[in-house]
Amino acid sequence: MHRTKVKVAEDALDANETIARANRDDFDRAGVTVVNLMSAPGAGKTTLLERGLERLDGVRAGVLEGDVQGSMDADRIAALHVPVVQLNTDNGFGGECHLDANMVRSTLEELALDELDLLVIENVGNLVCPAEFRVGEDARVMVSSVAEGEDKPLKYPLMFRACELVVVNKLDLLPHLDFDLDRFLANLDAVHPGVEHMLVSARTGEGIDAWREWLAALPARAAAPA
Amino acid sequence: MHRTKVKVAEDALDANETIARANRDDFDRAGVTVVNLMSAPGAGKTTLLERGLERLDGVRAGVLEGDVQGSMDADRIAALHVPVVQLNTDNGFGGECHLDANMVRSTLEELALDELDLLVIENVGNLVCPAEFRVGEDARVMVSSVAEGEDKPLKYPLMFRACELVVVNKLDLLPHLDFDLDRFLANLDAVHPGVEHMLVSARTGEGIDAWREWLAALPARAAAPA
Repeated sequence: MHRTKVKVAEDALDANETIARANRDDFDRAGVTVVNLMSAPGAGKTTLLERGLERLDGVRAGVLEGDVQGSMDADRIAALHVPVVQLNTDNGFGGECHLDANMVRSTLEELALDELDLLVIENVGNLVCPAEFRVGEDARVMVSSVAEGEDKPLKYPLMFRACELVVVNKLDLLPHLDFDLDRFLANLDAVHPGVEHMLVSARTGEGIDAWREWLAALPARAAAPA
Repeated sequence: MHRTKVKVAEDALDANETIARANRDDFDRAGVTVVNLMSAPGAGKTTLLERGLERLDGVRAGVLEGDVQGSMDADRIAALHVPVVQLNTDNGFGGECHLDANMVRSTLEELALDELDLLVIENVGNLVCPAEFRVGEDARVMVSSVAEGEDKPLKYPLMFRACELVVVNKLDLLPHLDFDLDRFLANLDAVHPGVEHMLVSARTGEGIDAWREWLAALPARAAAPA
């Protein structure tokens, strides 16, 4: 039973890798840089996107919104006149807890890649499985809210390792929490030494300029030789 | 491919149900009432447990701590001299994002059920998959932090439907958030009409008496005829 389960999971991840490479080829052909944005539920991914995209001058950005159910986040992005496609995972068995490469692939036609420089894929809120499934992205960003506690890198290490940037959000709440920012950063460094991080409050706008600049510079960074 | 995937998932859930019933029989034989405690990462399950268990007079309580990795939460519970067993899911493929009946079953011997009246199983932080896997519990409780936003019942409806009690935590943060409590409660009522809820702050102690009384009364309620 256990061996069968592991084999099925390995096969699923192998199939996912193959489709993720096909996605990546299509993104490259269209000249689109792709970000996979991940976090726990309610860490503020959508608000961060709203703030980051609303004055992203000179970059044609689009969004793919992943949710188990509903289109609330897509409606918020559409209100900014940013092209957005909603992807719901509840057609799968009981509602999938993550996006995979095949789900993303099913939206490529609708996404009009030729009209984009940057595509942000907002994953389902979850600190475990989204880290295991590449979708063809150039960069993975995770958002961690200070309201979640400073122990999260130690409890969900795969997620904190599987990203190129950690955005520490809801900084405006710090005075009202028992959250030790230095200890959080030490925990982060313990599981992913040297990873880039940013301190922001999507609510107050603190740190949002740096986030917007990071997004705006990504297409050039992704095109440069490694 | 899709049909195979659904079949594998259905078989896994069927097997889980069978083992959950076996767990339930063992819990019943030992006279232990079992709570499955679920939430997103960082909603405050462990702090809520610390506050709820620290003066739970007359009830012999134990805890099973589920985490992808680490034993930080178990260490916090052990400091209260409450018997606790740590269950890590990272032996599974890439780290399981939920507990299942078989994982819980593997701990039964260590749990010394005959010495308990109440067992609280703290699930992995995740708003999707834990709702799909019964583990043999009498009651399911979910914790939702006001810092996560009022849209969560609409975005993760299965989780909010799969519980008998919703504990709304971190109430002390309300003055510092754009969180409309009435709208949250309306969203909750839309997906799970009439479900019992409590407003608490595990940090300040607000509402904790009601939570402790709920826990203390559960063994009697579970024993009463439906």
